[in-house]
Amino acid sequence: MTAVLPADLLAPADAEGPASAVLQPMIERFVNGAAGDGLTLRANRAALDAICVVPRVLRDVSATDSSTVLLGAPCAVPAAVAPMAYQHAFHPDGELAVARAARDAGMPFTVSTFSSVPVEEIAAAGGTTWFQLYWLRDRGVTADLLARAESAGCSALVLTVDTPRMGRRQADLRGSFRLPDGVRAAHFDGSADGLPAAARTGVSAIASQTAGLVDPSLSWRDLEWLRERTRLPLVLKGILDPRDAAAAAGLGADAIVVSNHGGRQLDGAQPAITALPAVAAAVAGRCEVLFDSGIRSGTDILKALALGAGAVLVGRPVLWGLAAAGQAGVHRVLDLFRTELHNAMALAGCPDLAAVAGLATTGGPVPATAAGSVR
Amino acid sequence: MTAVLPADLLAPADAEGPASAVLQPMIERFVNGAAGDGLTLRANRAALDAICVVPRVLRDVSATDSSTVLLGAPCAVPAAVAPMAYQHAFHPDGELAVARAARDAGMPFTVSTFSSVPVEEIAAAGGTTWFQLYWLRDRGVTADLLARAESAGCSALVLTVDTPRMGRRQADLRGSFRLPDGVRAAHFDGSADGLPAAARTGVSAIASQTAGLVDPSLSWRDLEWLRERTRLPLVLKGILDPRDAAAAAGLGADAIVVSNHGGRQLDGAQPAITALPAVAAAVAGRCEVLFDSGIRSGTDILKALALGAGAVLVGRPVLWGLAAAGQAGVHRVLDLFRTELHNAMALAGCPDLAAVAGLATTGGPVPATAAGSVR
Amino acid sequence: MTAVLPADLLAPADAEGPASAVLQPMIERFVNGAAGDGLTLRANRAALDAICVVPRVLRDVSATDSSTVLLGAPCAVPAAVAPMAYQHAFHPDGELAVARAARDAGMPFTVSTFSSVPVEEIAAAGGTTWFQLYWLRDRGVTADLLARAESAGCSALVLTVDTPRMGRRQADLRGSFRLPDGVRAAHFDGSADGLPAAARTGVSAIASQTAGLVDPSLSWRDLEWLRERTRLPLVLKGILDPRDAAAAAGLGADAIVVSNHGGRQLDGAQPAITALPAVAAAVAGRCEVLFDSGIRSGTDILKALALGAGAVLVGRPVLWGLAAAGQAGVHRVLDLFRTELHNAMALAGCPDLAAVAGLATTGGPVPATAAGSVR
Amino acid sequence: MTAVLPADLLAPADAEGPASAVLQPMIERFVNGAAGDGLTLRANRAALDAICVVPRVLRDVSATDSSTVLLGAPCAVPAAVAPMAYQHAFHPDGELAVARAARDAGMPFTVSTFSSVPVEEIAAAGGTTWFQLYWLRDRGVTADLLARAESAGCSALVLTVDTPRMGRRQADLRGSFRLPDGVRAAHFDGSADGLPAAARTGVSAIASQTAGLVDPSLSWRDLEWLRERTRLPLVLKGILDPRDAAAAAGLGADAIVVSNHGGRQLDGAQPAITALPAVAAAVAGRCEVLFDSGIRSGTDILKALALGAGAVLVGRPVLWGLAAAGQAGVHRVLDLFRTELHNAMALAGCPDLAAVAGLATTGGPVPATAAGSVR
Ligand SMILES: Cc1cc2nc3c(=O)[nH]c(=O)nc-3n(C[C@H](O)[C@H](O)[C@H](O)COP(=O)(O)O)c2cc1C
Ligand SMILES: Cc1cc2nc3c(=O)[nH]c(=O)nc-3n(C[C@H](O)[C@H](O)[C@H](O)COP(=O)(O)O)c2cc1C
Ligand SMILES: Cc1cc2nc3c(=O)[nH]c(=O)nc-3n(C[C@H](O)[C@H](O)[C@H](O)COP(=O)(O)O)c2cc1C
Ligand SMILES: Cc1cc2nc3c(=O)[nH]c(=O)nc-3n(C[C@H](O)[C@H](O)[C@H](O)COP(=O)(O)O)c2cc1C
Repeated sequence: MTAVLPADLLAPADAEGPASAVLQPMIERFVNGAAGDGLTLRANRAALDAICVVPRVLRDVSATDSSTVLLGAPCAVPAAVAPMAYQHAFHPDGELAVARAARDAGMPFTVSTFSSVPVEEIAAAGGTTWFQLYWLRDRGVTADLLARAESAGCSALVLTVDTPRMGRRQADLRGSFRLPDGVRAAHFDGSADGLPAAARTGVSAIASQTAGLVDPSLSWRDLEWLRERTRLPLVLKGILDPRDAAAAAGLGADAIVVSNHGGRQLDGAQPAITALPAVAAAVAGRCEVLFDSGIRSGTDILKALALGAGAVLVGRPVLWGLAAAGQAGVHRVLDLFRTELHNAMALAGCPDLAAVAGLATTGGPVPATAAGSVR
Repeated sequence: MTAVLPADLLAPADAEGPASAVLQPMIERFVNGAAGDGLTLRANRAALDAICVVPRVLRDVSATDSSTVLLGAPCAVPAAVAPMAYQHAFHPDGELAVARAARDAGMPFTVSTFSSVPVEEIAAAGGTTWFQLYWLRDRGVTADLLARAESAGCSALVLTVDTPRMGRRQADLRGSFRLPDGVRAAHFDGSADGLPAAARTGVSAIASQTAGLVDPSLSWRDLEWLRERTRLPLVLKGILDPRDAAAAAGLGADAIVVSNHGGRQLDGAQPAITALPAVAAAVAGRCEVLFDSGIRSGTDILKALALGAGAVLVGRPVLWGLAAAGQAGVHRVLDLFRTELHNAMALAGCPDLAAVAGLATTGGPVPATAAGSVR
Repeated sequence: MTAVLPADLLAPADAEGPASAVLQPMIERFVNGAAGDGLTLRANRAALDAICVVPRVLRDVSATDSSTVLLGAPCAVPAAVAPMAYQHAFHPDGELAVARAARDAGMPFTVSTFSSVPVEEIAAAGGTTWFQLYWLRDRGVTADLLARAESAGCSALVLTVDTPRMGRRQADLRGSFRLPDGVRAAHFDGSADGLPAAARTGVSAIASQTAGLVDPSLSWRDLEWLRERTRLPLVLKGILDPRDAAAAAGLGADAIVVSNHGGRQLDGAQPAITALPAVAAAVAGRCEVLFDSGIRSGTDILKALALGAGAVLVGRPVLWGLAAAGQAGVHRVLDLFRTELHNAMALAGCPDLAAVAGLATTGGPVPATAAGSVR
Repeated sequence: MTAVLPADLLAPADAEGPASAVLQPMIERFVNGAAGDGLTLRANRAALDAICVVPRVLRDVSATDSSTVLLGAPCAVPAAVAPMAYQHAFHPDGELAVARAARDAGMPFTVSTFSSVPVEEIAAAGGTTWFQLYWLRDRGVTADLLARAESAGCSALVLTVDTPRMGRRQADLRGSFRLPDGVRAAHFDGSADGLPAAARTGVSAIASQTAGLVDPSLSWRDLEWLRERTRLPLVLKGILDPRDAAAAAGLGADAIVVSNHGGRQLDGAQPAITALPAVAAAVAGRCEVLFDSGIRSGTDILKALALGAGAVLVGRPVLWGLAAAGQAGVHRVLDLFRTELHNAMALAGCPDLAAVAGLATTGGPVPATAAGSVR
């Protein structure tokens, strides 16, 4: 695994090729794969591509300011790195490389529950650190994780709500995915890590691990327990239905992430970007609205913000940069997002993000039907 | 024809390849073929793929309960095996293999009028057995069939109403389809079975047989005759127009199946899934609403239920499993449907089928125009 | 050019391959080509394929009656042969072969102004004969043609209104199309026929001929002159805008043909089938509404009738049959239309054409915008 | 670079192939390339192709009159040549060849700020000349350019408002685009021209030049300064949002060009043709509405006029003609536009442009959402 920075990366997605070239096929499928037939994975992109922005003109864009405040932290761009597990599988520097690149880019980094580097080491890199929580069957371990994240200096808690169990990721199932030697879940003791080599087709080591550790009974009423154990701002990640968004806002969540987990959970789920407008309307400003699933360019960020998001999380492109060239690769990818976003803002006549929020769009979201309604 | 269970079946549709590998081309076209240019066959899938589900979050899904009651019979999953003729053509164990697998999966099995195993033998396998009726020109034979089905222990009568004659299935016409030696219509005496080898292109032995036996004059008023001759719950299979659905409910049908016969009858007919919402609305709970045509995954079942169906019938995938590996193959296919459905329910935040019925969908059905209206 | 009837024609469109195999490329492009980039040609088919029919059930379809009366003439099927020029280019028997096949099929045949056989010979074949008129610069010749058509026994006059000049048919322009030796416009003396071999790319002999003979100044007020010179029912062929349809009905036209000339005139014109519903609504029963452009199957006929047409004209498939096997080939094509239509009627629960008119459709026509309106 | 007129140009787009054959790849990508992933480039064409025109019939089209008056100048067709920089890169005769061909075709020619021939030489060729202005950081140079354009005899000033900076044109970035030797910005002294050969991937010489010269602070209030310095009619080029269009009309602009710069600026911007109707409605006749981005045929012009434009600008096809065969090539391309437009007008029943404006269309523009609204 060589970490040479390819010279011709002009857009974040350009990092995919170099990443695929260096990754083992099993790992490549782990990052790029999706649940089921990949319907939602593809729909995420198709929906983003179908949305058009209506640019404005004749506004002074000599300076474009993309800075914002996310959950209290000032950010250079309206974007954070999405929580993604086991980054040692992509590069020996793993999460540390990504966190440092995010810090340098002025973006928050989200530590996964299944990080391959402990949260303390990551937070020590400086920058804004958020902690992503999978609700564990063992409340004691959950409480410990919370305490570690908080005392390590994490400034927000991202509770993933779309993963009561793992989606059926066919590439992982088919290829009997297992983690490479030496890659482990740093927050767990030996009993959880060292995922068993999957014995046969149809069993994914990661899905088994998730089933063993993650508590599928998590429900709205458990949030109170969480609130009592942490002072951190609470983000609910993985909301698509406006009714859930309204509930989250009503219960005092500080933010939600409109997300379908990049197509990795329910295949057939609504493309996240088409869910965004109705969710933003339901929230009506009562909490922050973040977005992920399919963001691949600065224009995609512009679109998400025009449709109601305050910021986005970037997922796979970060891992492509990591695999291709370690910290420098991630930095390059994040820098390209920034460059593209500023270019897009200027061309759309937006000196700042408030102007972006006022852009009209066309060609995109189809209204969701009311639940249980019959069209 | 070997019955080795392929190791890498991860989804019901994975059984198609192995089935095609073992079937004679003529039989492969018989199962996979469709009427006309295959417009409706393809539209069934395209429409299902286009529908998106909006998952819910933060509901306790530690247990997902997919059980339901269909026409009075408790079922483990909201699905039954669709009536399909001549299953001996796919495997020496024919309908018996499928019925036993359905029984083990807790799903009703529907015996076709043109079953290659007599209804009595099938019902003896245990499990819930339904009988599918093609209305025959000879009322005496029809009455006999009814009596046989009832005394064999069938618990519902499925009257197929979309087949006054056979659709123009070009593969069958072109290939001069005829049944393999030894495959016969078990409910008929020698005069009906042993379909003549088709003499020339353009003549399908099965279409000739249907034309000879099935009565195209069947109409609403004949249902009374049926009602007088059986106490079994009555299901009308093959309804797409809400006016017909309302009529069925009004006449006291116990259930309808929204279906276009898997694209095998009227090519150019509406994709069944797009017809479902308006039909369910027209029925307004007065009878059960089942659905078939294109169901290939657990998520497809979730979609059909979110759009108003109480359960689905599974068609071709069952025959793929049968051809690939006999009873074990069918069992595997049915088990994959169950596994996928439970996974999808959990990921959509649905502990039970009532929750599924409350899911919102998007991107799907276009409203049908009122009859005779001009847009 | 051999006239052997291919054995495996199962649908009208199956005749295209055999026709292409026997025709000179220049002639093949003449029949199958279209104006411009072929946008409208392809859109005609795409629009027809996108329309779905909602079949009805439980109606006695033991007899399906497709008979109707078109412009006073009883027809076995709701279809006539569209006017098509120079049929000698496709087969030595030319229009006579087609007219005889149409007669045997119980369908009207429409003689083109540019027929390669004189109207008198065609009408003598028996059957219902209609005469298609291109309005000529020379009113004397026009009047003569009218008189000939009427005294030959034609029973309707089809005035083509979408051809003030020829569309830019690129295949013809590129290939310097010229008529084969011996193929001539039978209704014109030597000065008009024997189209000059096109001298160079960009000049189509047929377009030059049309420019020379056809009067582009034809307008609504000229219809009066026509009315005075003939007692025949008047059909205006080539109407897409509902305002023109209403005008035609208001001026007492007996029928209109909703048509874009099979994509051969204005490329970019609305697919004819999507224009049909609004046109039918504008006409509101004041005259008959025929349809052509893209009809390739019995189901297409069903769709056109469900959307408001009383009958269709069949175009290119007739010439494919002619090229492939002369009169027998045409007969086979027309018979396949009939067979398919009856099958489709039965499967849609329609014992007669009145029932077809009551079928609902879905997925089709998008409403046209009001003229000059801005969306 | 040979300037032989290909014999088989039948449509303007036919010139693309011959142009590509003679151009250096770097120059070919410069003309045909677009920003980002080319989404808007492709969407421009897809949207134009999706729009259908509803032709009218029975109107006297013996003479089709396409003449109009654009910004006070009589034009033979409702079209002008779009401003395009550095035409010497395509042919040694550069802008002079194009301006002469435009003059002969009765169309205005627009001189780019980055013309490779000085405006005085171009205006001397006769014909209607417009001057396109990029607002420069140096107001003195801007004022000089204005004065030169005016005294050279330009009759309109086209201020490009969609280019505060250059779009990210990946082909240029990747290929380290630089101008060929000897091609220079004729309106600038040595300090601006002779673009430096780009040193490395990711740097486009033209983007650097634009960044150096063009003032991104340009805003509505600067228009006053412009108004004070010129008596020429003012055209704002690059408007898509109806709010900007209304502002332009309100401030007394004489015309606007609805344009996304041919997909070369904001990738993801709305296809210009879908923006046209709402813009035309917002302007409500208060100023002229021109259109560009994707016009490739006479039918495209017809569509733009039916949707509310008074005329179009033609872009890349002109450069294809120039590259393929110099002035003669451009003349051929412009003549094909005229020929096709007249053919389309006749076939749509339009003797003049007023009739074209009354044509209905279908299948096209989707309404843009109100800014900031949430669907
Ligand atoms: C390899 C990988 C691992 C992931 N691990 C986690 C995780 O541990 N926790 C979590 O909430 N989301 C996880 N995600 C989902 C991401 O946070 C994010 O929602 C998704 O990647 C966004 O889609 P995109 O990659 O298409 O932009 C993971 C995604 C990938 C690709
Ligand atoms: C080989 C085959 C035979 C069939 N035979 C019958 C039958 O005898 N009676 C009936 O009502 N439907 C019959 N069907 C239709 C099915 O009951 C069901 O409606 C259809 O297969 C659903 O579509 P799907 O296969 O795409 O899921 C048959 C279907 C197939 C594929
Ligand atoms: C080879 C050919 C010649 C035609 N000649 C005439 C003609 O002389 N007069 C006329 O009104 N339409 C003519 N048409 C148009 C047809 O009448 C009809 O509108 C068209 O073929 C319908 O489209 P379809 O072929 O896709 O069904 C011609 C069409 C073809 C293919
Ligand atoms: C090579 C090239 C150079 C261009 N230079 C300019 C320019 O200097 N100023 C300007 O306003 N637009 C410029 N444009 C944009 C055109 O004026 C016009 O908006 C665009 O080409 C229209 O799209 P189309 O080429 O798809 O028809 C240029 C376009 C091309 C292709």
